[in-house]
Amino acid sequence: MQPLIEYEHSQGLVREVFDDIRATRQTNEINNFWKAIANHPPTLQRTWATLKDVMGSPGELDPLVRELIYIAVSVTNGCDYCIASHQAAAISKGMTQGMFGELLSVVAAANMTNRLANGYQVPVDDKFKQPTVIAK
Amino acid sequence: MQPLIEYEHSQGLVREVFDDIRATRQTNEINNFWKAIANHPPTLQRTWATLKDVMGSPGELDPLVRELIYIAVSVTNGCDYCIASHQAAAISKGMTQGMFGELLSVVAAANMTNRLANGYQVPVDDKFKQPTVIAK
Amino acid sequence: MQPLIEYEHSQGLVREVFDDIRATRQTNEINNFWKAIANHPPTLQRTWATLKDVMGSPGELDPLVRELIYIAVSVTNGCDYCIASHQAAAISKGMTQGMFGELLSVVAAANMTNRLANGYQVPVDDKFKQPTVIAK
Amino acid sequence: MQPLIEYEHSQGLVREVFDDIRATRQTNEINNFWKAIANHPPTLQRTWATLKDVMGSPGELDPLVRELIYIAVSVTNGCDYCIASHQAAAISKGMTQGMFGELLSVVAAANMTNRLANGYQVPVDDKFKQPTVIAK
Amino acid sequence: MQPLIEYEHSQGLVREVFDDIRATRQTNEINNFWKAIANHPPTLQRTWATLKDVMGSPGELDPLVRELIYIAVSVTNGCDYCIASHQAAAISKGMTQGMFGELLSVVAAANMTNRLANGYQVPVDDKFKQPTVIAK
Amino acid sequence: MQPLIEYEHSQGLVREVFDDIRATRQTNEINNFWKAIANHPPTLQRTWATLKDVMGSPGELDPLVRELIYIAVSVTNGCDYCIASHQAAAISKGMTQGMFGELLSVVAAANMTNRLANGYQVPVDDKFKQPTVIAK
Repeated sequence: MQPLIEYEHSQGLVREVFDDIRATRQTNEINNFWKAIANHPPTLQRTWATLKDVMGSPGELDPLVRELIYIAVSVTNGCDYCIASHQAAAISKGMTQGMFGELLSVVAAANMTNRLANGYQVPVDDKFKQPTVIAK
Repeated sequence: MQPLIEYEHSQGLVREVFDDIRATRQTNEINNFWKAIANHPPTLQRTWATLKDVMGSPGELDPLVRELIYIAVSVTNGCDYCIASHQAAAISKGMTQGMFGELLSVVAAANMTNRLANGYQVPVDDKFKQPTVIAK
Repeated sequence: MQPLIEYEHSQGLVREVFDDIRATRQTNEINNFWKAIANHPPTLQRTWATLKDVMGSPGELDPLVRELIYIAVSVTNGCDYCIASHQAAAISKGMTQGMFGELLSVVAAANMTNRLANGYQVPVDDKFKQPTVIAK
Repeated sequence: MQPLIEYEHSQGLVREVFDDIRATRQTNEINNFWKAIANHPPTLQRTWATLKDVMGSPGELDPLVRELIYIAVSVTNGCDYCIASHQAAAISKGMTQGMFGELLSVVAAANMTNRLANGYQVPVDDKFKQPTVIAK
Repeated sequence: MQPLIEYEHSQGLVREVFDDIRATRQTNEINNFWKAIANHPPTLQRTWATLKDVMGSPGELDPLVRELIYIAVSVTNGCDYCIASHQAAAISKGMTQGMFGELLSVVAAANMTNRLANGYQVPVDDKFKQPTVIAK
Repeated sequence: MQPLIEYEHSQGLVREVFDDIRATRQTNEINNFWKAIANHPPTLQRTWATLKDVMGSPGELDPLVRELIYIAVSVTNGCDYCIASHQAAAISKGMTQGMFGELLSVVAAANMTNRLANGYQVPVDDKFKQPTVIAK
């Protein structure tokens, strides 16, 4: 475990990113994740820029849906920290108990069927092989 | 690889499930996945019942969002068959090119941050440890 | 992709291991896996010694059960080569179609429940935390 | 973390499933896993029905072998809860210390060789590509 | 599968990134990976900026070591594309056959011992729990 | 959890391996990992022999680079024990804070791009398909 970098002890690039996290999230609290990766400032800067953009920029998927997708990945990978922190984020964006239950039921089913497809070595149907034209 | 069970050669329980797949999806085509797992009829029956319910029953997450979650898991696990078939399913339910791009950007970011949380062995913040009360 | 080392071109340590594989398996055929890892002779030697011992030495689990366990891992990891080659090995040791179906149904269920346990962050029951005394 | 639903506070569908778990397992204790997923009753019902069938129905693999397969998956995925609870289940079904040791040695070896097959990008042998006829 | 965006048909942000890839790598060839993710320009831009920095910026790990680490992850995850393309990149930076063999032997051993640690539920030694002071 | 086998209670094959660990590492301390897998002596013997050889034998990758590769795998798999113990090992072999930060940034980036390659189902470039000739 690396020591956590507290806001009070931060400086330079780390302080700048911490200030942007505070401003963006409108809270003085900074989660342990950011305090930990602040041990390597370029990782802090790059990761925050990526998450701020990927989770929060305007787009076609609303912020709650993005949180659900994030949780689906974290549950599949078994990342306890990420499950706990993004479950909280999803709740703050409107996730209800029913949504959470449905989310996990899809995650569970997909993990199950992924392995059935592997185990039966199912060949991809021809119709799924062509380049996909998706509406813009 | 197990032989695929074609509709024409199906009987008994397998035929029943195949008929329900056809009726539910309103097409005569049956994907290779179902033809493959039909080699073990109880698996076919159980898996179809689960997917029909999890992906299609009324609920708080709309069907397209469920497909996005399904793809997020399959991409994380690297299941080629599941990515190809559910990408097609998602498109049929309205996924646009922009949504697909945003979906994968969240999946990529979550897989990245999951490992940063692992690698820095980030301790879970106290505020995330309490039992969660989610609005019904 | 690394070039496959054919028996005819093998020499030294690689030839010795190849001869032991032939003698142990009572066939002149050597699977591509061994021909590939022969590019690094110590890996070939170590891996063959491990597999020969783990999969074939006398013990309390019969050889077919060990193959089923091996397939369970390979299906979970999505290793196509390993699934294909060990499915063949399991069949040669007596795996029936019913056993294969049951095997995959357990693998699928475990992958599903593993993620439910992750997602609901289920605390380990106290009774499961004590050091386990297992009968010898 | 979601609150655990205790038997005493359960009702309706959850109570029905809890009663079936108690009757099937012949104990009043209900593991935390079931108390946690009871937060989403359809998931509780579906998961219990699946596990009861997959792990306990008559078939060609005896119940202990199914537990070993279950553990193999859980160890590969790193699911602490599932490893702890199913290790206990396997012991209750007759797993000895020797069996557990052999189980983990196969799991370890398979995880090792899965990555060698990936890393050397081993092409699947032609003989493994044909549809497999398995004795019924 | 999404259509690949060829350089000749690229424009705007995609063209800019493609030009930077060409200039940085001193070749006119652009790998399929970039042509594919160009379907979502912000992902192309962000991913290229990240990889350019992480794999190529001055630092304490030389570029070849970074490639070896990259391959270790890709082999563990079973990403065929990434294994193939970064094996080529590592060779261009000086990876010998012996290094590749040693790399895969470490990856294989780590995947094996990771599961032994999981399966035996090994408690972390006290000495590994303290915050780590690493020399700068 | 299995009981840990302390050096004082070890005998026979286990004692022999423990003595070799002590001699090789020049310390009387034996990590919990070895005490745990000592519950199955053949696993202890085989695993120690493999790790001693893979991590410590003369070769083209220096011992620190091997530790970095080992950590990359363990972080990707989320093995807390292995991350903690090999982070300590890497530090003892000279890993600086900067190296650790760069290591995790590559691990994070590779986990991200692995999923982009999966999600976009990127076809392998022809130039990466030929058997690879690597300088000896």
